Amino acid sequence: MRLVTFSHADGPRLGARLGDVLIDLAIAAPELPRDMKSLLAMGDAGLAAAEAAAAGAPSHAQLRFSAVRLLPPVPHPDKILCVGLNYVDHAIEIDPRSLPEHPVFFGRMATTLIGHNAPLLRPRVSRKLDFEAEVAAIIGIGGRHIPAEAALAHVAGYALFNEGSVRDYQFRSSQWFLGKNFDNTGAFGPELCTTDELPLGARGLRLSAAVNGEIMQEASTADMLFDVPTLVAALSEAMTLAPGDVIVTGTPSGVGFARTPPVFLKPGDVCEIELEGYGVLRNPVADEAV
Amino acid sequence: MRLVTFSHADGPRLGARLGDVLIDLAIAAPELPRDMKSLLAMGDAGLAAAEAAAAGAPSHAQLRFSAVRLLPPVPHPDKILCVGLNYVDHAIEIDPRSLPEHPVFFGRMATTLIGHNAPLLRPRVSRKLDFEAEVAAIIGIGGRHIPAEAALAHVAGYALFNEGSVRDYQFRSSQWFLGKNFDNTGAFGPELCTTDELPLGARGLRLSAAVNGEIMQEASTADMLFDVPTLVAALSEAMTLAPGDVIVTGTPSGVGFARTPPVFLKPGDVCEIELEGYGVLRNPVADEAV
Repeated sequence: MRLVTFSHADGPRLGARLGDVLIDLAIAAPELPRDMKSLLAMGDAGLAAAEAAAAGAPSHAQLRFSAVRLLPPVPHPDKILCVGLNYVDHAIEIDPRSLPEHPVFFGRMATTLIGHNAPLLRPRVSRKLDFEAEVAAIIGIGGRHIPAEAALAHVAGYALFNEGSVRDYQFRSSQWFLGKNFDNTGAFGPELCTTDELPLGARGLRLSAAVNGEIMQEASTADMLFDVPTLVAALSEAMTLAPGDVIVTGTPSGVGFARTPPVFLKPGDVCEIELEGYGVLRNPVADEAV
Repeated sequence: MRLVTFSHADGPRLGARLGDVLIDLAIAAPELPRDMKSLLAMGDAGLAAAEAAAAGAPSHAQLRFSAVRLLPPVPHPDKILCVGLNYVDHAIEIDPRSLPEHPVFFGRMATTLIGHNAPLLRPRVSRKLDFEAEVAAIIGIGGRHIPAEAALAHVAGYALFNEGSVRDYQFRSSQWFLGKNFDNTGAFGPELCTTDELPLGARGLRLSAAVNGEIMQEASTADMLFDVPTLVAALSEAMTLAPGDVIVTGTPSGVGFARTPPVFLKPGDVCEIELEGYGVLRNPVADEAV
């Protein structure tokens, strides 16, 4: 099943996508929660109820998918947990001397998020906005001290993430945080694809990034140094994961700043992140308003 | 004024502390919001209304301060924005070769937070839990691109923060995030002290940390490399600050892992962080339950 959060005059709503049709779950399943975190907290029962309601939805609950404005599938996750240097070839393009022995985690704040088709904003203070194609794993039932063997039962689904990075700010101190936390630089979506539609751990899928139609990154998700179960286990050693938490699993080589000559995003560009078996996350680039 | 969030059978409530008395604002000012973020979003009008209600509170709104269980003053901030290496002597104890040219920011998640008197938890997986005495600046009215000259108008008040750090996890990759994000390692409180009670920018105050009564850190907040206005300006270049966001402004020298021999926190220890003119944040240490 494909679940989205979409913009509605009454506030954000949940929807289930069936091809070109979007089922408005506030109409088709008024007994279900109105936000993704609460739905995910219900576990498999919530997903099954949404799926059943979508399948039997009356015609007045059906919208054209192309006519709605999508928000990030989880608009305000409690935690956005990013992983750096998680593909061998990208780790080498950043530092050829060593590969990480442990996952390299850093945090993003929800103020960075935008949905499918919304513009990635090149900030006023920098000309070094870069793209990063990544798979996002979205937590369903939360927990602490989740062993890797049990981790995939805590993942409700996957989405794409374009982990826009402002490179001069990222590298002006030892901690990448500031360059990873500009408003409207983290594209997330279009939808949450439940785990049953993809291989275990979203493994072995082609992941790519294109700018203006030109492929800039291309790899298999099997090339992750630390796979999704390992990341869930490593994070939950430290912290309690909650429904809707997002693990952004790292990017392959080919990012703009590491290219010769470097490529940075500019207004009018269009980024398309694609994952085999999932679809495309598309975002134009615009300048932050002055 | 001293504002707290405290535990109540009906859920968290706001209170105003008047010495040994705590005014339950849900009773004294039922027209005001029930949570700190919403109260702060009202700006000076919200604070003035809380203060007036507290001053005229009926006796059935009065509790003994020592009898309530405090929660973090903002229990679930949208953003907890920490600053590393922000005191010269601490920056040198970590790396004698260089001082940061820009503030070194990193993020904490709300799952790390505990209030006054709650135990800091030494995690199951490490014996290297360390203390860090810090001043927390709490945002009132939010904004983006806030110039340093205007920044203090966006700070509603201050509190203390013991930025508990799990050192082996902090330093096992280039990014400190994981070691800074263990559950129940970030003590925050006891209360939000409005800016009128402290010097501008909370500057020039003695800040200290004691473990079991022994002073381990002691400095003046005037020794910050980047002061509160500079931090607000630098963060808001990148992101929109919101009511209740917390800026944790860095720690002076004397942290446990940099001592000879190193000192780490163990069950039964008591940490006391003190700020001149503000008060004490006290937390015992316990082991995470197995």
